[in-house]
Order: sequence, then C-alpha cells, then structure tokens
Amino acid sequence: MKRMFFQNLEHAACNHTLPLTTLIDELAFNEQGLVPVIAQDADSSEVLMLAWMNKVSLEQTLATGRMTYWSRSRHELWIKGATSGNYQQLQSLRVDCDGDALLCRVIQQGAACHTMRKSCFYIEANPANYSAVIISSA
Amino acid sequence: MKRMFFQNLEHAACNHTLPLTTLIDELAFNEQGLVPVIAQDADSSEVLMLAWMNKVSLEQTLATGRMTYWSRSRHELWIKGATSGNYQQLQSLRVDCDGDALLCRVIQQGAACHTMRKSCFYIEANPANYSAVIISSA
Repeated sequence: MKRMFFQNLEHAACNHTLPLTTLIDELAFNEQGLVPVIAQDADSSEVLMLAWMNKVSLEQTLATGRMTYWSRSRHELWIKGATSGNYQQLQSLRVDCDGDALLCRVIQQGAACHTMRKSCFYIEANPANYSAVIISSA
Repeated sequence: MKRMFFQNLEHAACNHTLPLTTLIDELAFNEQGLVPVIAQDADSSEVLMLAWMNKVSLEQTLATGRMTYWSRSRHELWIKGATSGNYQQLQSLRVDCDGDALLCRVIQQGAACHTMRKSCFYIEANPANYSAVIISSA
C-alpha cells in the first residue's frame, strides 16, 4: 500500500503546504475507486460512522462543505442528510500517512445513523462473558 | 451491503445481548475477508489510525486485549507494537449498524503512526485556499 508520495511527506516539517489537487490525485483509492471515511463529531469527538468516498464525492464535499459519500449499495453520490435532513457540515478533513483513509470532523444535524441513533457504532462486544450488547436505543 | 442480521438488530432495545460468536460470524467481511477498524484514543478520543482485521485477528484481539490487525502489505497477522513497542490495549470494541466496520477505543503506548506522530491523520486539507498542510512533526 505504500506510495512514494506519502513516504516523502513523512519527513515534511509541520506547516509544510502542498496543492490540494496534488494530494487528491495521489490518494490511494481502492480497486473500486473508493477510500474509507471516518466521520467524527466535531463537538464531542464521538465517532459517528464510517462510509466511503470516490474522487468526485470527495471533491464535492470539499467544494460544498456538505459530506457527500459514494453509496456502495445504490451506486450513486450520497449527500448525507439529503433525504433525512441529518446533514453533516464538514469542519476539517485529514488524510492518513498512507493516503488510503480520510478523517472528517463534522457538525452533525440530528442522528448520523439511519436507525436515528447518534452514532452507527451501537453494538459493543463484551469479550469477558462472550457476549455483545446494544448500547443505545433506536 | 444490508444484511438481515443487522437489520433485525436495529430494533433491539438498549441492553439487549447476543452471543459474541454470533456477532462475529455475521460480520460483513469484504471480498478479501477484511473489515476496516478505527482505532480511537480512549483518553483523548483522538482518532489514531484506520487499519484492517480479518476474523482471526479480530478473535486474537478480543482474546488477548492487544490490537491485532491484518497487514495487507505483508499478508500476515500484525500485533500493533510488536516491533515498535507501541502496543494498543483494547478498551472497547464496537460494531456498526451494517456490520461492516469496527470502532476500537484503545490505550495507546507511544505513537500510533509509524512516523512517530501520535495519529496517522496528519495531513489536513485547506479547501479555502486549495492547499493541504502537515499538521504535526515527525
């Protein structure tokens, strides 16, 4: 997965800048043209969901400030909240050291999860007693 | 991506429990047998990295309490910190509503990133001026 572009950036000093288009062009989209995107609540730092973007949805997210994913089930651009009203306003977008994952801090309107829970991560493992538990109500 | 097992869980009440082995068996591993895993610092809630687990690495993580990923570049189990000493102790592991992503809160020894930065997400987009910036030093 290692790419020369990101290996070179490892040694860049803090505050080193580069063109955004270059960064986007160098991202390691997978064989379906997608990267995983973590959406984190900008206020509480709670992790809300993991979804996927292709290059077009990433560019649209940056241009509009509204989180826009690629729906792998519907095979279309997915403006988060377009049907539910639960939009996500982009606050910051970061790329990881391998250029194959994104972290977005967002201002979440209402619930992130389609079940109306705040976060999609509502099933917690309890390995001590070989169980799992639902940790929030729909 | 929707799976009946997780659709049924959507309506489960808070504190509903289920066998951990059932949950693991129902996870939506991708065509490579992997799920993306978000590692979040248990103290600061900072998102540290995104990596991947297969079923064996997930079971090993739960059994040992040490974050154990699948290295996609080396094609082997990867006990995080086994070479660097920067282990991640599992505090909690959650599954999302579609069963295709994991969120782990961890106690991070030292840096999560191989560049010795605390987090792997150290390149930030600045769409207002079409640039990106390195936000922490190696």
